[in-house]
Amino acid sequence: MREEELLAMMTARSRDLPARFGQVLTGPGDDCAVVQIGEQRLLLTVDQVIEGRHFRRNTSLDLVARKAAARSISDIAAMAGSPVCMVATAALKPGMDQAEADALYMALKEWAEHWECPLVGGDTATLASANDPLMLTVTAIGRVHPVRGAVLRSGAREGDGIYVTGSLGGSFEQETGLGRHLTFEPRLKEAAWLASTLGDGLHAMMDLSDGLGRDADRMARASGVRMEMDASAIPKNPGVRDWKRAAGDGEDYELLFAAAGNVPARTESGVAIAKIGVVVRGEGCVIAEDGKLMDAGGLGWEHR
Amino acid sequence: MREEELLAMMTARSRDLPARFGQVLTGPGDDCAVVQIGEQRLLLTVDQVIEGRHFRRNTSLDLVARKAAARSISDIAAMAGSPVCMVATAALKPGMDQAEADALYMALKEWAEHWECPLVGGDTATLASANDPLMLTVTAIGRVHPVRGAVLRSGAREGDGIYVTGSLGGSFEQETGLGRHLTFEPRLKEAAWLASTLGDGLHAMMDLSDGLGRDADRMARASGVRMEMDASAIPKNPGVRDWKRAAGDGEDYELLFAAAGNVPARTESGVAIAKIGVVVRGEGCVIAEDGKLMDAGGLGWEHR
Repeated sequence: MREEELLAMMTARSRDLPARFGQVLTGPGDDCAVVQIGEQRLLLTVDQVIEGRHFRRNTSLDLVARKAAARSISDIAAMAGSPVCMVATAALKPGMDQAEADALYMALKEWAEHWECPLVGGDTATLASANDPLMLTVTAIGRVHPVRGAVLRSGAREGDGIYVTGSLGGSFEQETGLGRHLTFEPRLKEAAWLASTLGDGLHAMMDLSDGLGRDADRMARASGVRMEMDASAIPKNPGVRDWKRAAGDGEDYELLFAAAGNVPARTESGVAIAKIGVVVRGEGCVIAEDGKLMDAGGLGWEHR
Repeated sequence: MREEELLAMMTARSRDLPARFGQVLTGPGDDCAVVQIGEQRLLLTVDQVIEGRHFRRNTSLDLVARKAAARSISDIAAMAGSPVCMVATAALKPGMDQAEADALYMALKEWAEHWECPLVGGDTATLASANDPLMLTVTAIGRVHPVRGAVLRSGAREGDGIYVTGSLGGSFEQETGLGRHLTFEPRLKEAAWLASTLGDGLHAMMDLSDGLGRDADRMARASGVRMEMDASAIPKNPGVRDWKRAAGDGEDYELLFAAAGNVPARTESGVAIAKIGVVVRGEGCVIAEDGKLMDAGGLGWEHR
């Protein structure tokens, strides 16, 4: 079973939700759902981290909690939103003692507050077997950007430039200490600044979790356009020599966005913004290298 | 590690949240968190169901999805709220094929809509080993009751009567077909009706997930009062002969509430309401039988 097919199926089956339920503005398929409650437009997202898939058995509980929180916070950032609060679940190993459970809870609470998204509730259960994987889920609620509103991934238009923040690839490398997939900083303030600065010129945005290639392909398909990117323009992290790794490694949690008009080379907070391509008529996403076009959708990293 | 101690620790460590974050009205420790977003007061809750703990390996995917949704919906009911929408995660077995994953998704979507709480997003991952337990989480958002607001478990007062809806015990019995823990109907409309009918006289409410004894003890401690219940007044399900089983079995998902004034014997929807005790000065919760007092807190069923 491929995650991509499952996601596509779920998105297709839920396409009629906004027509059937007035509170649903955007259903499954984007980084967050967007719901209308009274005068408020809220963002809602959930992510899970599983031992052996998203972290190792020997990863510290602090980093496990950090990653669990940061993934959901990054989804709020991807819509240009601001966090309100979170709830979490933990499926704990039977061998964990009170002190370890306490440490995990305190770590999650502290990371939640670090991003001004206090942990207001949750549920714990203990797994049956010591071999069962430790698992956390974090659901985050956010508010949409007060002026621009929620920035969906489906708004890219012909003529837009394609941009990424920061640099890509090597998130799992341990060479320089901890992999960035455990220590990344969700681009909350950069996303809000982009929405404030570019306003309605910011057409589409998402965070890069499964690799630029796969994620850009998703943005192109959601928007009904074709995205053409230039391999040499993709910003690579130190130690990442090959653009295919920069576009395929996954778990960068940088912002990918499509915008019209002038886009600054750097955010107010000092993060570089690279123009990596253009939006044209058509479908899918390609990366050009020396005049050859590669299908971008096959490059990304699939969380199986 | 006992779940009770862990919950008590988390509640204690989060007691200062409302003072530190203006959006937090009620943090961990109740059936839902209560958060203020603009003019709206929202309820937020998450629950998980794990194979081998909350359902069996051979439980149908439809009933797994139903239970996952119903547990969170019941938490919204426990605060007298009404559902808005939900998000979910699924950690799937590696052997599941597309058709099974599809069936699980459709079941969850349909149960969500059954309770007017559309499934607006989520996350799936596939587990590493076929022995790892299938696991679902459901986060539900609700609105508070438009007149009475959120009904907390901490509001019971000296002089209140103690009441339960329906009848208790035997939720895991298979004799009459499926266990009620898989097929219970969350008391959404009954809770809203109680809040509308009793208004400010409805002082405290919660749903019974871990058994009347343990849950009433939690209500008493949260409220800073003592609850005295009469063993002979506890309504038992057919086949449940012993009041200790009715008070200890768990997973009833009936409403326990404390209220002043006259309380009808039946809800508008026809569910019986039984008066089972009174709130007095003191602490803890006891059940009286033939003049002997039993500590109620030790009776409940602990999800380990």
